[in-house]
Amino acid sequence: MADEDAVLAANEAFYNAFAAADATAMEELWAREAPVACIHPGWGLLASRHEVIDSWRRIFRAAVPDIVCHSPRAFVLGETAFVVCLEIMPEAVLIATNVFVREGGVWRIAHHQAGPTGERPNIVATSPTGSRH
Amino acid sequence: MADEDAVLAANEAFYNAFAAADATAMEELWAREAPVACIHPGWGLLASRHEVIDSWRRIFRAAVPDIVCHSPRAFVLGETAFVVCLEIMPEAVLIATNVFVREGGVWRIAHHQAGPTGERPNIVATSPTGSRH
Repeated sequence: MADEDAVLAANEAFYNAFAAADATAMEELWAREAPVACIHPGWGLLASRHEVIDSWRRIFRAAVPDIVCHSPRAFVLGETAFVVCLEIMPEAVLIATNVFVREGGVWRIAHHQAGPTGERPNIVATSPTGSRH
Repeated sequence: MADEDAVLAANEAFYNAFAAADATAMEELWAREAPVACIHPGWGLLASRHEVIDSWRRIFRAAVPDIVCHSPRAFVLGETAFVVCLEIMPEAVLIATNVFVREGGVWRIAHHQAGPTGERPNIVATSPTGSRH
């Protein structure tokens, strides 16, 4: 699998864990050796693996996120990469940067920042209810 | 110079060019070999060096930005690194992720995303006019 495809697969796994509110899967996806950080929308910096994982547990306890990743683009920088994608939610569209690092051959996430964007995905409505899936 | 210090120096150079509205210096700071991308606050993704550099020229033509970088933290991932910092402006405090890549021994910026944060810097006012410098 080409690096870009592998990074996009890691990004997809991140959003699968996010949308499933699966804290165990989420923890598995974050880097173990590299430093990790996270900026949830409107939050300040979380700058340790413990803080980051704990934040996801708190988010998932509050509600199961209704989130869909859209238009991911991978940028590979050797053993590190970042993905930019839209995050489609009922109340907002966000844009995110996800930084990945290759550890033991596996792409793991090292950093996530999401915030508002005026960008709108080019989604063709497939039903009168406006289902996004 | 330790990697972290060198990355923080590259981040400082980025904000110096930003605050000076210096398009030539800004262009110099962006990666030449690595793919580059940029997400200005509220914007969509800019995904080529040409688009990114052009966006800075347009921003600088509109106004000289009143921006100060605060509390930068560097996270080094080998030949790549990212810095998270606050961006203090008169009308808002933003939080930014800046991704750097080492090209020919020089840390160059490959990606920038800035967006709103509820975080506030711990700044002690030094004058009744509230000068931030």
